[in-house]
Amino acid sequence: MQTLTVDLGDRSYPIHIGAGLLNQAELILPHLAQKRVMIVTNTTVAPLYLARLTATLEAGGVAATQVILPDGEAYKNWETLNLIFDALLTQRAERKTTLIALGGGVIGDMAGFAAASYQRGVPFIQIPTTLLSQVDSSVGGKTGINHPLGKNMIGAFYQPKVVLADTDTLKTLPARELSAGLAEVIKYGLIWDVEFLSWLEANMDKLRALDPVAITHAIHRSCEIKAQVVGQDEREGGIRAILNLGHTFGHAIETGMGYGNWLHGEAVAAGMVMAAETSRRLGWLSDADVARTRALIRAAGLPDVAPDLGVDTWLEYMGHDKKVEGGKMRFVLLKKLGVAVITGDVPADVLTGVLTAPH
Amino acid sequence: MQTLTVDLGDRSYPIHIGAGLLNQAELILPHLAQKRVMIVTNTTVAPLYLARLTATLEAGGVAATQVILPDGEAYKNWETLNLIFDALLTQRAERKTTLIALGGGVIGDMAGFAAASYQRGVPFIQIPTTLLSQVDSSVGGKTGINHPLGKNMIGAFYQPKVVLADTDTLKTLPARELSAGLAEVIKYGLIWDVEFLSWLEANMDKLRALDPVAITHAIHRSCEIKAQVVGQDEREGGIRAILNLGHTFGHAIETGMGYGNWLHGEAVAAGMVMAAETSRRLGWLSDADVARTRALIRAAGLPDVAPDLGVDTWLEYMGHDKKVEGGKMRFVLLKKLGVAVITGDVPADVLTGVLTAPH
Ligand SMILES: NC(=O)c1ccc[n+]([C@@H]2O[C@H](COP(=O)([O-])OP(=O)(O)OC[C@H]3O[C@@H](n4cnc5c(N)ncnc54)[C@H](O)[C@@H]3O)[C@@H](O)[C@H]2O)c1
Ligand SMILES: NC(=O)c1ccc[n+]([C@@H]2O[C@H](COP(=O)([O-])OP(=O)(O)OC[C@H]3O[C@@H](n4cnc5c(N)ncnc54)[C@H](O)[C@@H]3O)[C@@H](O)[C@H]2O)c1
Ligand SMILES: [Zn+2]
Ligand SMILES: [Zn+2]
Repeated sequence: MQTLTVDLGDRSYPIHIGAGLLNQAELILPHLAQKRVMIVTNTTVAPLYLARLTATLEAGGVAATQVILPDGEAYKNWETLNLIFDALLTQRAERKTTLIALGGGVIGDMAGFAAASYQRGVPFIQIPTTLLSQVDSSVGGKTGINHPLGKNMIGAFYQPKVVLADTDTLKTLPARELSAGLAEVIKYGLIWDVEFLSWLEANMDKLRALDPVAITHAIHRSCEIKAQVVGQDEREGGIRAILNLGHTFGHAIETGMGYGNWLHGEAVAAGMVMAAETSRRLGWLSDADVARTRALIRAAGLPDVAPDLGVDTWLEYMGHDKKVEGGKMRFVLLKKLGVAVITGDVPADVLTGVLTAPH
Repeated sequence: MQTLTVDLGDRSYPIHIGAGLLNQAELILPHLAQKRVMIVTNTTVAPLYLARLTATLEAGGVAATQVILPDGEAYKNWETLNLIFDALLTQRAERKTTLIALGGGVIGDMAGFAAASYQRGVPFIQIPTTLLSQVDSSVGGKTGINHPLGKNMIGAFYQPKVVLADTDTLKTLPARELSAGLAEVIKYGLIWDVEFLSWLEANMDKLRALDPVAITHAIHRSCEIKAQVVGQDEREGGIRAILNLGHTFGHAIETGMGYGNWLHGEAVAAGMVMAAETSRRLGWLSDADVARTRALIRAAGLPDVAPDLGVDTWLEYMGHDKKVEGGKMRFVLLKKLGVAVITGDVPADVLTGVLTAPH
């Protein structure tokens, strides 16, 4: 097991990464204000891991109830969130009752927002079970739900007490979902650490085969980079935005194609290629850099070509993005591989070129 | 105009109290991150004050849009909150767009929660137009909505940038609502300041007649006391709970009688008499103290007798209260007039006695 601390003053918390963590009550018990928890999970994850987690908790003397939500991004909305509130109120959950998210990013985001909002805040623990949620949503405290007019538009910044990333849970994850998680892992290399990028190129096959040493390293290094960025900018005023590499394009793909048809990671992968392509047109990346980016993304089993939404649709869905400021669009681009930059100065013709080029 | 600062470190903010503040753009302008605001108000307050506020803002160069909600506690729910999100998204409000609450506590709580949650937090300004919201909800940062199973169960702690309590707006407030606000004013005397309690006894007629000097003093002293308590305990771990004097009983009355039939302040008034009565049975208050409490409450035009809900209903609705901890009910009582105490040790027979006595 490897452990890393997300440093946020009195809201700091540890992330434990390794195999078999679901069996280790001692990782959870010290963080409970009361020996009472409610586990939030979904219909896919419950049959796989709920019994094991419940057994671990009960062996530790913890009373555990659960709420099992329907599975899917399409359910990341108020109606589903309300099922959590209904369960909390019906069970008369108290201010010290801990909410545990057991599942991917959708469960983590919803359970986190429910924990932030129920009685204006109850303790929260993350047990992410997808690669994407282990390397991304478990660090940084963003929680929330979608609105028909935009993704993640309603939510809170809310930190967990502890995160358990049990790499064993990845064994049941569909290959397509594993690849989606690798998109965010590649992102960390692109924006922050060109050595990590090279390491990924050398180890991509091992990662896709879930080699235990490789996958633990990749998760650890990803969380480390994200924690470093978030530690400097908890509430996203500045540098944190570099974590959105590929996301302005990606969100447009997700929205334009209908939530859930493209996986988040797939859309981000194609979006990162577009960001790299924009950077190339601005003279920052070479043809070879873009080719290297595309190759790594393909090696991870991800799309390096975005769907053709048409310029108007692209602009409309990109304009709804949270990175808009003063009506002007800001982009996360690459100054070189391993170095991200945030800019509001992308000439219209460069942007249009990227949006209309064969993606 | 009087000004007071709520001291919460980097979330500190000023409260301005006085006549004609709605006309003073200079009180608002320094707090805007962007010259763009959305005013949240309701169908009752809009015809009275929306044009004036909008004119003041526009004279200051601020682009102001609005969303007008249906009026009433019954609408303090997700559906209505969502009208705010719909408006924000339809108007493409950005992260620096300020939400301004113009109305009573219902509007303040909903607009505040919307500001806390939209894009995980946008700036927020309170312009409370009821006495209750001027002396209570404008200090402390509690925001939220109701759930069918309990009041204020979903929300956030979120501080405004500035609060404007324009005493002129109270001139259109129905007398019953003014009295409801006086319940919270009396509460501050009971829990914190027996001299202020005496001052209230001497000035109750002036307050009900909206004498400008008296009403400004009452609001100022109330906010001062609340700010002092909240400053010691922003997230309600300890002493802040004394602000809930009468509220455990009061919430049971509100729920038991159906939201909106008893005003919040009326329920709290009757609840404070029950708290005083409980304190008397524990030997802390004298018969004269309780009589004095009842007299002041009646002088404010408030009920000093609770409805007879029946013990089971009382206990059920009191049990859903947020002050429950470890399954045990905690009460805010009076050690003497002007001194509140929080206790989990009310013998069952004392409680039952209070709940079954002629209220
Ligand atoms: N909060 C943040 O900072 C943050 C960051 C990135 C993404 N997100 C959000 O996360 C979501 C995407 O997360 P995701 O990719 O984990 O999607 P997901 O939660 O939908 O999980 C993907 C699928 O895998 C299933 N699953 C989960 N664990 C499994 C396991 N161990 N075995 C088999 N199946 C399993 C899920 O039930 C689901 O069907 C999006 O809503 C996105 O907005 C949030
Ligand atoms: N956040 C907090 O800390 C806090 C504290 C106390 C109460 N509250 C909440 O506040 C709410 C009660 O607030 P309230 O008593 O202001 O009720 P309210 O907001 O419902 O206002 C009472 C009535 O007066 C009308 N009104 C408002 N201003 C007016 C004016 N100037 N002239 C004429 N009519 C006017 C309103 O439209 C409404 O019909 C409850 O929901 C309660 O939970 C919150
Ligand atoms: Zn992402
Ligand atoms: Zn109150």
